[in-house]
Amino acid sequence: MRPTPSRILPLLTLLFLVTAPDASGQQATAPTPDEVLAASPDDAWRALDPERTVYLELSGGRRVVMELAPEFAPRHVENLRAMVRAGLFDGGWVMRSQDNYVVQWGPRDVADTSEIPEGIASELDAEFEVPSRGLPFTPAPDGDVYAPQAGFTLGFPAGRDPEAGLTWMLHCYGVVGVARSEDPNSGSGAVLYAVNGHAPRWLDRNLSMVGRIVSGMDRLSVLPRGTGPLGFYETEAERTSITSARLGSQLPPEERTALQVLRTDSPTFLAYMAARRSRTGPFWAHTAGRIDVCGVGIPTREGR
Amino acid sequence: MRPTPSRILPLLTLLFLVTAPDASGQQATAPTPDEVLAASPDDAWRALDPERTVYLELSGGRRVVMELAPEFAPRHVENLRAMVRAGLFDGGWVMRSQDNYVVQWGPRDVADTSEIPEGIASELDAEFEVPSRGLPFTPAPDGDVYAPQAGFTLGFPAGRDPEAGLTWMLHCYGVVGVARSEDPNSGSGAVLYAVNGHAPRWLDRNLSMVGRIVSGMDRLSVLPRGTGPLGFYETEAERTSITSARLGSQLPPEERTALQVLRTDSPTFLAYMAARRSRTGPFWAHTAGRIDVCGVGIPTREGR
Repeated sequence: MRPTPSRILPLLTLLFLVTAPDASGQQATAPTPDEVLAASPDDAWRALDPERTVYLELSGGRRVVMELAPEFAPRHVENLRAMVRAGLFDGGWVMRSQDNYVVQWGPRDVADTSEIPEGIASELDAEFEVPSRGLPFTPAPDGDVYAPQAGFTLGFPAGRDPEAGLTWMLHCYGVVGVARSEDPNSGSGAVLYAVNGHAPRWLDRNLSMVGRIVSGMDRLSVLPRGTGPLGFYETEAERTSITSARLGSQLPPEERTALQVLRTDSPTFLAYMAARRSRTGPFWAHTAGRIDVCGVGIPTREGR
Repeated sequence: MRPTPSRILPLLTLLFLVTAPDASGQQATAPTPDEVLAASPDDAWRALDPERTVYLELSGGRRVVMELAPEFAPRHVENLRAMVRAGLFDGGWVMRSQDNYVVQWGPRDVADTSEIPEGIASELDAEFEVPSRGLPFTPAPDGDVYAPQAGFTLGFPAGRDPEAGLTWMLHCYGVVGVARSEDPNSGSGAVLYAVNGHAPRWLDRNLSMVGRIVSGMDRLSVLPRGTGPLGFYETEAERTSITSARLGSQLPPEERTALQVLRTDSPTFLAYMAARRSRTGPFWAHTAGRIDVCGVGIPTREGR
């Protein structure tokens, strides 16, 4: 059986047509995830709050945008904001990249105290969980292996224990946590990590979580893996430099990334989850009819 | 509160001490995953079978090792073996890298039929599932969001439907599937992909799965993301070349990678899963007591 170009070429263009809308234009089946987003009203989206956004500029002009989550770790986020304002990350670097786990960054010399102004804490009490009271929660539809309840709170993947009345951020792809040593109260926000592989959910409730990479994760995820223990780089030359870190509010509006995030408490998000769990269209031989909380993804789009 | 070097330096060395054994030497708590592996008997491990191993040499001398899974897709694996023997991948390339999804590779010109010998199929009937009968199965201990049963078969993550009597490979990090177009029977094994992010489990039972990357996934995962639709590279210059692909049996023994895989039907693997679900040691403030099938990981070690 010899392949002919007409039969094989579609492999290159159509393979995994799982994120693009059905080109047939037919609407006989349920809408695809992209069709849900295309039909969404503007009020399903929110602009990034400049006070809750950190722009991390990597060497080579590559920008990484992190949305802060003060509701999940208020003291750590406030301390992180103070560190950004004080310029502590400028000249810092990515010092660790471990495959299918985390990428980690911080100031150039985290032990150099000479530049740290008063009012910035070097250690904070752990904020692994927060009270659920008052926090919105959109459950993921199909349960979870780890948490009694899993879903979304204020645009972040979240777990809940209804008996204990506690909420915590889940270690899904791209979420950002505060590195620490063995002492649970040893983190500060100076050294941060982002998940770069399959969700390491066993870390949940063990680290203070401060946000999520909403743009530029594809830059952090491709950094060469470090060859030292735990993926730390063994030489300074391997590290990627951080040119600067700034809050959105420190930048003129035109220098901020024009980005909107889908509200996780919107009807559009519910429809999006439904479309993600039941993929339809000509590609799909089997429809899962299920979606895990870290498999949903939180859509973004251009816009202010 | 000023940080002092003695309080901050451990951040760089101890952070996430989750893969290293407890340095205290104490054994008051359950063993760590690394301790389980260190204490394992030799018969818990198996060497790679040269007939079931493909060595993919990327430009720059970077080797990627794939273990084949003929029990999951016998026709596709046999066709892939024939393609490797015919040298069809030599001079091929990686043509796609989509963040948190898949990296994909194949021959340089998949539409060029001039070099394809008789006996190699350009399209095969789908092998999305196989009968469970006769296949060993080690269940993951904590259930699964997607499959009626999830666990491990012959060293690969597997789902099962006991009512239908079917088994299929799960889209965990590093597993390798056969790309296809919309027609379920359009894949051949010439174009393959590996999962490079959070497990896209909605692809399960939609693609024929031929194996798993057992070494070198950290090379494939860092390839720059393509900027075209679905992460395809837009120019040839962005693609990474494949110098050659060879079965282990085509190479002299000394040129094969000395690698052993933990048997997923061994008592050691059960102990390893138990240690992964209940992490103990000074770092852990909260023990999950749960592990998802794609979070287990299948250990490898050096050895022939």
